[in-house]
Amino acid sequence: MAVGGNALTQAHQSGTIEDIVANAAGIAACLAPLVRSGWRIAVVHGNGPQVGNLAIQQDEASHLVPPQPLHELCAMTQGQLGGILVREIDRLCGAGTAVALVTHVGVERDDPAFDHPTKPIGPFFGAQEAASLAADRGWDIVEDAGRGHRRVVASPVPVDIVEIKAIRTLLDAGHVVLAAGGGGIAVSLTADGGLSAMNAVIDKDHAAAALASAIQASDLFLVTGVDAVLLDFGTPHERPVHVLSALEAQEYLAQGQFPAGSMGPKVTAALHFLRDGGRRALITSAERLAAAAAGDVGVGTRIEPAHAAVVSAT
Amino acid sequence: MAVGGNALTQAHQSGTIEDIVANAAGIAACLAPLVRSGWRIAVVHGNGPQVGNLAIQQDEASHLVPPQPLHELCAMTQGQLGGILVREIDRLCGAGTAVALVTHVGVERDDPAFDHPTKPIGPFFGAQEAASLAADRGWDIVEDAGRGHRRVVASPVPVDIVEIKAIRTLLDAGHVVLAAGGGGIAVSLTADGGLSAMNAVIDKDHAAAALASAIQASDLFLVTGVDAVLLDFGTPHERPVHVLSALEAQEYLAQGQFPAGSMGPKVTAALHFLRDGGRRALITSAERLAAAAAGDVGVGTRIEPAHAAVVSAT
Repeated sequence: MAVGGNALTQAHQSGTIEDIVANAAGIAACLAPLVRSGWRIAVVHGNGPQVGNLAIQQDEASHLVPPQPLHELCAMTQGQLGGILVREIDRLCGAGTAVALVTHVGVERDDPAFDHPTKPIGPFFGAQEAASLAADRGWDIVEDAGRGHRRVVASPVPVDIVEIKAIRTLLDAGHVVLAAGGGGIAVSLTADGGLSAMNAVIDKDHAAAALASAIQASDLFLVTGVDAVLLDFGTPHERPVHVLSALEAQEYLAQGQFPAGSMGPKVTAALHFLRDGGRRALITSAERLAAAAAGDVGVGTRIEPAHAAVVSAT
Repeated sequence: MAVGGNALTQAHQSGTIEDIVANAAGIAACLAPLVRSGWRIAVVHGNGPQVGNLAIQQDEASHLVPPQPLHELCAMTQGQLGGILVREIDRLCGAGTAVALVTHVGVERDDPAFDHPTKPIGPFFGAQEAASLAADRGWDIVEDAGRGHRRVVASPVPVDIVEIKAIRTLLDAGHVVLAAGGGGIAVSLTADGGLSAMNAVIDKDHAAAALASAIQASDLFLVTGVDAVLLDFGTPHERPVHVLSALEAQEYLAQGQFPAGSMGPKVTAALHFLRDGGRRALITSAERLAAAAAGDVGVGTRIEPAHAAVVSAT
């Protein structure tokens, strides 16, 4: 299950602890019925707004305290957001139910994403402020889905989950496992066989798909701000779609129906998961999750593998 | 095993990532021989310098970004320092060996420590700067073991480890487990059975003793900057002591041989562990750890339970 960093700090919020905890409580309330009905769940939270805030604090205090690099800020958000989600899940499901594991996610050192930053982090800026931040701090800044300007950082493809064995062990022991938070701490292999941390923010939907594949999950839940995927978004023909085959989803993606930075990565992550043998990917809101997971086909957007006959024809 | 936050950012260092990683590599190098010879180890790291740095960053950027409270900064240091130690241990012992678990540690809401802050965090200040920080930011500041002035925060007694079952599961599965980092995120039970995060930094030696007792560890290793405990420290009679019974340690403690904020909490933590059934507590440097753990009685300071006859006489 993937939950966005924007679900923890919403677009109109600045990132106070009170807001994050209240949002986490809402996520826990939607998760608890699934836990009670027997689902074993690994949760991957995002960290875009929070890691961006940490980056601003590093810069602002750099005359007093050595700023930590981006990979360390990702690690910090795993501690903070993982801890908050654990407390809110435990409040509803019992102390010791949820655990948060600091997780490293392997990437390729020569992933082209390192030269083409795309992942938005931190707050929204106006055009003028964005231009001066780009000049002063060397940030890459883009317009984000029409909502304002945001800093973007490299977002390489997740290749493997370093702590996968421990995650499986904890799931098997009955825990709700918070893992690969913020997409994980990106690492690449060094010549001596060690792990070198990389300055990047891996997309949490892609990390969740990689994790779901690695643990051979039946389902991948991609929780977002809308109840279902919309087709022809922003046009008079805008409509929700509740069931898609992988082939249909692939076609809509190719048509540009799903914008990068919002629904695009979710549909792509869902397709990766189904390609790797997943049974079902669900894109829906936290509020609709329990109903959609239970199989209500009029709720959320369910993406399923193509029929065998169709796959063999492609 | 407890490792100080000062071992990760040494007193003359400012807390750069390069210094923290180099220090973590040194700790991993001392730990790896123990892992290879079959020890199953839970590691509790401190976070004093690092959490203090984060607190300064929160204040300094508070006009731009909402500052996070102290319990969240503790959580962040678990992500950062746990992640770094995992990478350095994995480099020597194989990827996936070490795992860091975000850990909550239960405290009493009415612990008197909340009214009497004693735990030093962050950098050292001169007397004049300390006075102005106390006035401007409302910080409690004290002189720390003759090394300068430092901010102090509440440090309540650890009562239980919320994630204890998961820690046991991971140890049983063969992992080196980084847990209760920075002493853990302090929490107290709320009326609804939930966990409420508290603004405190639990002493990492006491958290390590509580963890060691809860997992019924045979040994508690308290790693510090000196090779052995010194008696009559700073006098012409200063000398290392290599073996102490719990009763002797208790007597020296009562005599004021071990200052608060340095050796005092270590000896107290060792005594708690032995009282709870521990076999041996070792206080030594990272460099001497492997030899001391292997039983070399001329290395480190080994504290052992009183003999049965002595215990029954008290």
